[in-house]
Amino acid sequence: MKTSARNQFAGPVAAIKEGVVDTEVTLQLAPDLQLVAIVTRESAENLGLTLGQDVLAFVKASSILLMAGEESRISARNRFTGTVTKLHTGPVNAEVTLTMPGGRHVITAVVTDDSVKRLGLETGQALTAVFKASSVFLASID
Amino acid sequence: MKTSARNQFAGPVAAIKEGVVDTEVTLQLAPDLQLVAIVTRESAENLGLTLGQDVLAFVKASSILLMAGEESRISARNRFTGTVTKLHTGPVNAEVTLTMPGGRHVITAVVTDDSVKRLGLETGQALTAVFKASSVFLASID
Amino acid sequence: MKTSARNQFAGPVAAIKEGVVDTEVTLQLAPDLQLVAIVTRESAENLGLTLGQDVLAFVKASSILLMAGEESRISARNRFTGTVTKLHTGPVNAEVTLTMPGGRHVITAVVTDDSVKRLGLETGQALTAVFKASSVFLASID
Repeated sequence: MKTSARNQFAGPVAAIKEGVVDTEVTLQLAPDLQLVAIVTRESAENLGLTLGQDVLAFVKASSILLMAGEESRISARNRFTGTVTKLHTGPVNAEVTLTMPGGRHVITAVVTDDSVKRLGLETGQALTAVFKASSVFLASID
Repeated sequence: MKTSARNQFAGPVAAIKEGVVDTEVTLQLAPDLQLVAIVTRESAENLGLTLGQDVLAFVKASSILLMAGEESRISARNRFTGTVTKLHTGPVNAEVTLTMPGGRHVITAVVTDDSVKRLGLETGQALTAVFKASSVFLASID
Repeated sequence: MKTSARNQFAGPVAAIKEGVVDTEVTLQLAPDLQLVAIVTRESAENLGLTLGQDVLAFVKASSILLMAGEESRISARNRFTGTVTKLHTGPVNAEVTLTMPGGRHVITAVVTDDSVKRLGLETGQALTAVFKASSVFLASID
């Protein structure tokens, strides 16, 4: 499967929490790294999600916010800290890539060019990529 | 009222499923084409949604993910397959328009330019536009 | 037309910045309050946006993040600070409403129930609602 999503992660399902409409799914990407997704309950059922099952998670670059400085108290369930390894600016938007410690995980965000300037982003800087559980798409690997 | 949403669909409400906070609403766009939206329960109540009522659904181009290759098992409730009829690239983002079979429905996605290159997208190619139910805005027609 | 978007703001266009694919539009909601939206350039042209024109902005509750504590350095262009005036929790998601100073503006977010607990949210607490420019949907008033 090939998708346009710039961010793809893989890992086994570590937890499933069901609501009437929504289901929350936690993936264990690495021993110390989890990803949380909210999908509709019907989607979770269609995917036949079970604990331990290997699943892919996709996040669009445009769904990601960047946060500089000490970690804040923010509602977003997913917060991945890394170092800026690539900056690509345009007239309105800019693309920022972080590499997480160990180099295994990379995450790309599209933010406004103005935000890049305001935060004074540059390569080598420590930064946190933040995204909501509801921004995650899941896919099962057949 | 004119809106900025590139994607607008219309159809009667085919199903309503209520949760504590969210409500899932299914629209029948065509005999073989449904669209699923998640809105807050309060929104659904404010709109006074009832089965059979004609409703508009809006989806921002930036909420859409593109998927190439055979249909995978992905959590997104909305998957519209078509042919690429327009490609418009920029320095960071690119706009991709698909036309669905029959030509009645058109769907536009904004993805990163890098994704367009990585997927090797070109006009005429079959592609699936995927979006989460939570990315859909609904409007009632008074 | 009534929409499902829980958050609706109105104001004149204060700035327009055009890119190849995207256009950034700034609305002046109040003398000291701006809202920034990214829409596709084609959408901006379809809406015929001009400086000073009154425009509506819609944001889905699920596109909003909540941030507690002192203001962080975050890429999101829109940061609205207020006081929690309503909390409505469910099994997976929760709805949090902030009222901004003066009581003119209210903003509602849907976040996970777990985030509400982790942040220890309660009514009366100061909180910042954060959303990306790309999460905003614009409409012109004919």
